[in-house]
Amino acid sequence: MHEKIMEVFQVLHMNGGVGEKSYANNSLVQKKVISMTKPITEEAIINHYISGKFSTTLAIADLGCSSGPNSLFVVTELIKSVHKICKKLNLESPEFQLYLNDLTSNDFNAIFETLPSFQENLRTQMGPNFGPCFVMGVPGSFYGRLFPPNTLHFVHSSYSLQWLSKVPEGVENNNKGNIYLASTSPPSVVKAYKEQFQSDFSVFLKCRSKELVDGGSMVLTILGRQNQDPTSKDGCYIWELMAMALNQMVSEGVIDERKVESFNIPQYTPCPSELREEVEKEGSFKVNKVEVSQIPWSATTTNNNNDTAFYINEYDDEEDYPNDINQNNGYCVAKCMRAVAEPLLVSHFGEAIIDQVFRTYTQILVHRMSKENTHFFNVIISLTKTQ
Amino acid sequence: MHEKIMEVFQVLHMNGGVGEKSYANNSLVQKKVISMTKPITEEAIINHYISGKFSTTLAIADLGCSSGPNSLFVVTELIKSVHKICKKLNLESPEFQLYLNDLTSNDFNAIFETLPSFQENLRTQMGPNFGPCFVMGVPGSFYGRLFPPNTLHFVHSSYSLQWLSKVPEGVENNNKGNIYLASTSPPSVVKAYKEQFQSDFSVFLKCRSKELVDGGSMVLTILGRQNQDPTSKDGCYIWELMAMALNQMVSEGVIDERKVESFNIPQYTPCPSELREEVEKEGSFKVNKVEVSQIPWSATTTNNNNDTAFYINEYDDEEDYPNDINQNNGYCVAKCMRAVAEPLLVSHFGEAIIDQVFRTYTQILVHRMSKENTHFFNVIISLTKTQ
Repeated sequence: MHEKIMEVFQVLHMNGGVGEKSYANNSLVQKKVISMTKPITEEAIINHYISGKFSTTLAIADLGCSSGPNSLFVVTELIKSVHKICKKLNLESPEFQLYLNDLTSNDFNAIFETLPSFQENLRTQMGPNFGPCFVMGVPGSFYGRLFPPNTLHFVHSSYSLQWLSKVPEGVENNNKGNIYLASTSPPSVVKAYKEQFQSDFSVFLKCRSKELVDGGSMVLTILGRQNQDPTSKDGCYIWELMAMALNQMVSEGVIDERKVESFNIPQYTPCPSELREEVEKEGSFKVNKVEVSQIPWSATTTNNNNDTAFYINEYDDEEDYPNDINQNNGYCVAKCMRAVAEPLLVSHFGEAIIDQVFRTYTQILVHRMSKENTHFFNVIISLTKTQ
Repeated sequence: MHEKIMEVFQVLHMNGGVGEKSYANNSLVQKKVISMTKPITEEAIINHYISGKFSTTLAIADLGCSSGPNSLFVVTELIKSVHKICKKLNLESPEFQLYLNDLTSNDFNAIFETLPSFQENLRTQMGPNFGPCFVMGVPGSFYGRLFPPNTLHFVHSSYSLQWLSKVPEGVENNNKGNIYLASTSPPSVVKAYKEQFQSDFSVFLKCRSKELVDGGSMVLTILGRQNQDPTSKDGCYIWELMAMALNQMVSEGVIDERKVESFNIPQYTPCPSELREEVEKEGSFKVNKVEVSQIPWSATTTNNNNDTAFYINEYDDEEDYPNDINQNNGYCVAKCMRAVAEPLLVSHFGEAIIDQVFRTYTQILVHRMSKENTHFFNVIISLTKTQ
């Protein structure tokens, strides 16, 4: 069992570097989601700031920072918000202590190499009164303690908490034909996934409640669903299509069927009530806000220039796209998923078949995206530590 | 000017990875030096610990941690010392906050990948009452602020402070035939090097005095010299021989003479009185101890199994080595220097000539080491923050 945990820790990371298949070059959705949640994040940090509950140094942690432009994009936006309110209220700008966390296998070198220009840009943008900004890398799982007690004023996490600490026990070989929850998953598998999420998220809350100061806050954006049913399309479809690609390669004799049967994604896409429930059970945090937003899969594409972000019940305009745009969109979604899932797939299936997996997956995505509206659902929860 | 600084920051780092030429595999001298200084380090941290001047978390920074086995070796030794004294005095073991610092171009990924087994080993060695140990990477130059005020209890640095923040101004093209200080360096070059060291070390002390709590301490081991004269062999010989190798390649027409004239190593090997003088000028620290020790160049070789560490005036036994050991020693010194200096050399001379540089350097080292006793000199200074 323990070996299995080690394995997930070591295998789960976004594609490193800055190449064509890197996460750095394929994280546009994640960036758009960060922009979408900015008003909530800004509100939380400003409320915290004007409550005056911190010393001269404001300590901010981004948990699951990954590597690429988004790693520093988040904290830059947070710093700008605080700086703006300071100017407005005629307060002195605080010193910033920024903690960037991800698993030990994350490409921290790539982030650190961009720090000199990050610091330079901050100084240019913020002007001469901008206090020093200390940046540290914090390698390790956020399903465990990362910081000494009462260290943090603000915690941010985006598109990370859907990752579980491990593949739930009892799922392997019991979820045939699937690689994540699906409508055909047996109830025991659904239960195992849900319980793993509850246990992981509860550990996460316990750890953070020790590390945050009283009155400190968290804004968490989680790839999730709006539907109550954990096997609904909202949260599962993107993996269902990848399972189709793998099963197609089984039928072509390229992959051994047993290999697919033993492969399951360590992820859970929760709905708002599941998050709220765990927060209430744990008891250290007050829920300020929970929201669901959606973003079309096509937002992965760079030529889709409008910063597409549709809150529930708002219109979306994907049906107007001509076919060649759909082709491009399918390709971009596949590339985005490759940056996220390649290390997991390679560690299970080996390097040799990966290109073919993503070729097949692309074809399936192009076809489906031309027929239906497909979205990622984001659950955003804003919390304040009350005790 | 500013570009020059950026350049040194980005270029100065030990060879990354774990390959044959990596610093990780060629840092035996550095490890031996760390072992040699252990009594002083242990004394300092224990004095600090029993003074009771820290909260439940003991914050330790290793500045210039590099990447490889030494990065975690130092902090492991420090943790063991504290744990031992806690057991002896029947005190509860503190939580540890470890900060590993080096320049942004250091291979932090390589350190972080070994953290799960490092944590596992600590738990095994220290037993069940061992408090959590939080590890963070702190990328940036220690010639600038790295931490918020009053953050650190103990600062350690080994074989790092001899590196200057930049090549001193006015040295380029004025130090013909040399790449560092040498007996033939003109007085203006000697002055420029010395002033750069004074300025850098003074900035270092100012920054650390803000970051350390009152009563916090530092143990710094610096590649230095015992002789007062900055151009004496003590601190310069290893680079003089590299200059010989480069000049030989100039005479063979492989390297352009002007290239060597414009190349200078951003290093200064201070003597004890120079360190003491800067500490007294800065005024925040009390000097507990200054010592000089020496270690033969041959300590770079792995088959030299005795943990050779000779304090001044003690005997050394190199003359007994047969010739073939000298050959091996020369090879190992060259490899050790390659792990340290390759990035600097490549950035100035290009990749193409590097193998030949180190082949020539090895021949010169073998020859010299068979004729004379050659040593690295270490200056160790133990300081406590008094105000």
